[in-house]
This record gives sequence, structure tokens and C-alpha cells, in this order.
Amino acid sequence: MAGPLEGIRILDLSWVLSGPYCSMALGDMGAEVIKVERPISGDMARGSGPFINGESSYFISLNRGKKSLTLNLAHPRGKEVFLRLVERADVVLENFVPGTMKSLGLDYEVLRACNPRLVYAAISGFGQTGPYAQRPAMDVIVQGMGGIMSVTGEPGGPPIRPGASLGDIVAGLFAAMAILAALQERERSGLGQMVDISMLDCQVALQENAFARYFATGEVPQPLGTRHPVFTPFQAFQTKDGYIVVAMVGGMSNRWPLFCSAIDRVDLIDDPRFETGWNRTQRYGELEPILSEAMRRKTTQEWLKELSNLDIPCGPVNTIDKVAADLQIAHRRMIVEVPHPRAGPVKVVNTPVRMSRTPPKVERACPDLGEHSREVLRDLLGMGEEEIEELGREGAI
Amino acid sequence: MAGPLEGIRILDLSWVLSGPYCSMALGDMGAEVIKVERPISGDMARGSGPFINGESSYFISLNRGKKSLTLNLAHPRGKEVFLRLVERADVVLENFVPGTMKSLGLDYEVLRACNPRLVYAAISGFGQTGPYAQRPAMDVIVQGMGGIMSVTGEPGGPPIRPGASLGDIVAGLFAAMAILAALQERERSGLGQMVDISMLDCQVALQENAFARYFATGEVPQPLGTRHPVFTPFQAFQTKDGYIVVAMVGGMSNRWPLFCSAIDRVDLIDDPRFETGWNRTQRYGELEPILSEAMRRKTTQEWLKELSNLDIPCGPVNTIDKVAADLQIAHRRMIVEVPHPRAGPVKVVNTPVRMSRTPPKVERACPDLGEHSREVLRDLLGMGEEEIEELGREGAI
Repeated sequence: MAGPLEGIRILDLSWVLSGPYCSMALGDMGAEVIKVERPISGDMARGSGPFINGESSYFISLNRGKKSLTLNLAHPRGKEVFLRLVERADVVLENFVPGTMKSLGLDYEVLRACNPRLVYAAISGFGQTGPYAQRPAMDVIVQGMGGIMSVTGEPGGPPIRPGASLGDIVAGLFAAMAILAALQERERSGLGQMVDISMLDCQVALQENAFARYFATGEVPQPLGTRHPVFTPFQAFQTKDGYIVVAMVGGMSNRWPLFCSAIDRVDLIDDPRFETGWNRTQRYGELEPILSEAMRRKTTQEWLKELSNLDIPCGPVNTIDKVAADLQIAHRRMIVEVPHPRAGPVKVVNTPVRMSRTPPKVERACPDLGEHSREVLRDLLGMGEEEIEELGREGAI
Repeated sequence: MAGPLEGIRILDLSWVLSGPYCSMALGDMGAEVIKVERPISGDMARGSGPFINGESSYFISLNRGKKSLTLNLAHPRGKEVFLRLVERADVVLENFVPGTMKSLGLDYEVLRACNPRLVYAAISGFGQTGPYAQRPAMDVIVQGMGGIMSVTGEPGGPPIRPGASLGDIVAGLFAAMAILAALQERERSGLGQMVDISMLDCQVALQENAFARYFATGEVPQPLGTRHPVFTPFQAFQTKDGYIVVAMVGGMSNRWPLFCSAIDRVDLIDDPRFETGWNRTQRYGELEPILSEAMRRKTTQEWLKELSNLDIPCGPVNTIDKVAADLQIAHRRMIVEVPHPRAGPVKVVNTPVRMSRTPPKVERACPDLGEHSREVLRDLLGMGEEEIEELGREGAI
């Protein structure tokens, strides 16, 4: 292990995406993540395709570098083992429907009694409290209920889901940040606490700008294709052979004359309708056809060269294969290989965190189910071979 | 101030969105954020509409609770003041084009010499190193180059930008997390370090699943409307009067028969083509018309009631006004009011972080430009009235 979080131990009861993304982010930075899984079936993400030699690529990507301990939390001896591990942990993470841990007799109050320094983080669809608390939620549910699907898509068109699991992932990132903040506070107080992250709340936090605009104007934000709601031009344009993104914001308004000259429309430079970014946004209906027509006249590469020479921020609209082959992505080592006993070396996305003195490293495989049960029970709890065998026979691990 | 990060002081040189979102997240949790702005013009986000009584709602939302200090970093005495503040800071945050701080004589090496405990975090479009490092980037540029626009939209349709500034915000969240990890490490080593976050890298990290699928199958991920690439049904459906999202994942496959009966298609229950979630995804072309046709037969409310009774995760597709008025959002206090001297009390989105012992609180306004210059120089650096006046006359603050 390497990275800034060396020495931090996380007992991770979470499954599928929001929790595992959170513990991946922390594990990538050097935390020891002990993934506590149900015996026999484990994290259901192990069964999610596509598969490489029968191994879930979904699971491999999210669980690299973690340890796997099987534990039956409904079994009295499983509970006992769990509570002994809690005494030696810094963080417990779970993403069950609220109430699940209480029904197991393992809610925060019980865990805190074992270890007052414990940071207990729960991620759920709607939070631990409130009228929807007990409802199950999945990514697309909170993306739908949280509003982002209503502002994603073509103007006047049907709702579109952004092409990533923002419901889970943004909650996972807020949870990781909140856990680290609670650990920071623990340095002063010596005490842990409970962190309660709602996926729906995180959707709202992600969209602070849409809400700010709505509260300021009373107008309900609408889908805008590739446009930015405030700045113009700040969008994708179709070119002769593909798409290009161009972005000008307020403080770069001095680039507007250059852009006008690049598209052979110097007549627009002094047009008062289009003087500032906000003017251009207000007059978008008049401006858009002019720009779209102009941008279709050259290829993406021609535009990239020409606009870059004028220091106008621009870039291609890349597909995933192009991103994976990109020079900058290669330089930053954003794609790395981790070993896997059956799937072979598997390419996964690296952490984006770069640090000068304790750089994070992604280099270990995902665990087989229960791969580290023995090691964890022996090294952390000092159990002997016989006791471990017995726990296995009883169905506790 | 309140929250887990009380006592952490951030000198925030960043502007517009990625950096300010990062420092907002940390400030909401109790860190003292001193926003260092250019004299006269300040953060250019102050000029971004829409406006409330002439005040930028964009700026108000992102900068609540921060202090504003004007400082001319190109002025020798401005630099000197900055370095004295660095001695008393835990974190410096900036999101300039790489090289800007070096050209000011204020790069990490210089700052570290002043304060070896300093965590220096830089957010940039492409990172501090690599072939694109010097390119300016804005949100839509990295959303385009990072691939998410290519997987967002209707199948076969043009690229769509997800309706939030994911390029900036996800980078801001990773930066906040990395800063806290570096502070955690500092508790052990007594030393700070440099954190280098690239917006493009963060886009890749956000899409680990799209890359995992691409590496596993060689198929380039495509836009899927509202669908999930792995699970089915997991999408929005048009109803008689709107849209509803329904989500079934692998482990809930026992809900498939219930769903089939809810839509009056019990014949599908034993259809081997649609047995598992992954089967259904593979046979989506055959299944989709059947489901879409069925879902159009009832209203959103009718479906919500019926499917919820069967414990099938579902929810409405809400517009932003509906989210703002939602009962759960109200219960979670996700919309709060902050005071503003001219715009009046303004509604902003709360932090989604809930903690049991040191709960974060969002309650203070955004600062006027330079509002806290006097206070910071006096309280932190012990400057007298006369010296502060002189700095003002010389154009250093």
C-alpha cells in the first residue's frame, strides 16, 4: 500500500456502486479496505457483466486493492467477529436501506459503544431520515427524482440520463470527503461520529447552479443539448466531419472578436446584441443558427488548429476508445493494469489524485470472495486456525 | 462557523467553478476559506448572470460563508502579504493554467519554503504535466474530450452535455477529498505536499464503468437514452402523462416476475430470453418495445403507487421546481437561505453532508469584494490601520 491514507482501516459493508466507489477512492489513496461480504454470494456486483473469463469487469474495476472477508452478520458469532473488528477499525461504511443495521443489532449506537473513535458512514438513496428514508433507490431513480434528467437532452426532447452513474458516484465522492473530514475532526476531539449521505441530496448539491438560476428567475431550467445555461458560445458544434466543443466564459470576452474573425463573421464583433456572454445567452436563438452554419464549413481538426492558435478553448468530442488512446491520458497514467488470477492483467481506470510526497498507487487486483478472511481474522483478531475453521463450519464466515 | 473542519484555514486563489466548488465543500464543513481575489474586478463569476438586484446568483451560491481579501499577486507587496498568509494557512488552492503561479514567483517550492506543513492543491484542465498541460480548459471542453458527451444522448443521436458542470464539479470534489487526505497524512508526517488534480483525469475516473466495459469487450460505449448499460429495466419510461424511472438490478431479479405481472405480461416471466438482468440487456431490442408500450397505459402516479406496493424501485422524473418543492428535500433541509445585504435572503443549495456530532451549517452570505481584507490583514498578520491604507494606495490590495 502507498498513499496518504496508509494506516486508516475501513470495514466496508457496502455493495454495488455508491459505497464501493467511495471505498475505492479511499483505498486508492492507501486506506486498508476490508470488504465485508455475505458468505457464498458476496457483493452482487460480482455477478454484473460484461465478464472477462467469467470474471465481472464491473467488480474488478471498483474493487481493486481491497481485501475480502466473508461474514454472516445475521449469525451471532458473525456479529461477534464484526464487533471485534470494529474495535480495530477507523471507519465503517455501509449502503443498506436505512434500518438494516439496526435490525441486525449493529446500528451506530452499538458500534460506538465498542469504539468511540469510529467514523460510521451510511450512504442511502434518500438519507437516514425523512418521509422517503425507507424506500429503496438505485442510481437512475435519484437521477430522475433529483432533476438532472430533466435538464439533460435536446431542447423540448425527452429526459436523458447522463452517461455515468452520477447518482451513486457523486454520493460516493461526498461520502469519501465527509469521512475524511470526520477523521480530521477526530484528531482534535478523539471522537468519531455518524455520517449520513443521501444520494438524492447529492444530486441537488451537484446541481447548485440549476437551483440558483431557478431561485433567481423563477424559470424552470430546461435541457439545452450541449449548451451551458449561462455562457455562450459554450457548447458542441457539428463540423464537416464530427463534433467540436468550444468554450468562452465571461472573462474571456476578449476572445469573442477573435472567434468572430475565425468564423469569417467580423460583422458580429460590434453587434450590440452579442456583446457579452450573457447577452449572447439571452439572444441565443438569433446567434445559434449563425454559429452552427459557420462551424459546419471545416473539419474538426481544421477548427482545432485554427481556434487553438487564437487561444480559444476548444477540443474534440471524443468517444471512449479515443479517450483511452489519448496522449495526455497516457502521460497521466489514467489507465493502469491490475493483475487478476483468472482474467489476467486487466486495464482499469486509475485514481485521478496525484500527490508529490505520498503518491497513491493502483496496482493490486480485486479480491476473490473471502480471499482474505483467514488473514484478517488471524492478523487483526489473533484467531487460531481451529477457531477460523469452526466459524466456517457454523456458517458465520 | 461549525463543522468538522473548524480550525482549517484555506487560502483560495481559485475562480469560477472547479476551485470555488471545492472550497465551498470544505467551507460548508467548517473550514475558514479566505478567497483571495484580484483588486477591482475580483472573481469573474461575480459578473455571471442571472442576477438578483444586480448580484450574481451564480457567485452567491458558490461562495457563501467565504471571506474575501483583495490582493494583487503581481505587486511586490501583494506577494509579500500573500507569503505571510501562507505561513498561517493549512491549504492553498488555485485553478490557474499551469505555470501561472511560477510566473508570479509563487509556485509550490516557494510556498513550501515558507510553510512546510502547507497542502498546495492545484486544479487544472489537464493537470500540471503532459502534452496538454498548458491548454486552457473549461467544463464543456473536458466533458467533450473526456467522453461523457459521447455516451449521453439518444441512441444514434448527437452528443449531449449532461445538465450539470461535471467537468468542474467532479474535479472540485476529488480535489476536496485529496486535500483532506493530505491533511490526514500531515497528522503523521508533519509535512504538507502538492496535490495535482486534472479535470480531464476526473472525467475518466467518473466513467470507470464505461472504460471497464470497453476494455472487457472492445465495444465503444454508445449513448443509451435513459438506459443503464448493464441492468434492464433500469431507465425512464414514458407514461400516460409524463415519465417514470424504474430500476431493477441483478440481485433484485426476484422482482422481475412482479414487474411482469404489474404490466400485465405474466407471459414474460418464464421467457428464457429475459431471465436475468444481463439477458434482458443483451435482448434489449426485443424487450424495449414491449415494456414501453405497457408503461404508456397508466399515469405516472398510478405506476408509482402500483410499483411501490411491489417494492420495485421507481420514482418520477422531476423538473427542478418539483425537486425544490419535494417533501424529502424539505425534510433534509437541502435548500437553505443565506442573507445578502442587497439581494436579500437568497435560497441556496445546502451541503449534503450530515454529521451527528459536528454538523456542517450553511448560514452566511457570500462576501463583497474585499469585504474581509481589513479583518484578515489585522487579525492574521497584526497589521495596523496605516499599513493597510498604504497597501491600498500602492495597489497591492
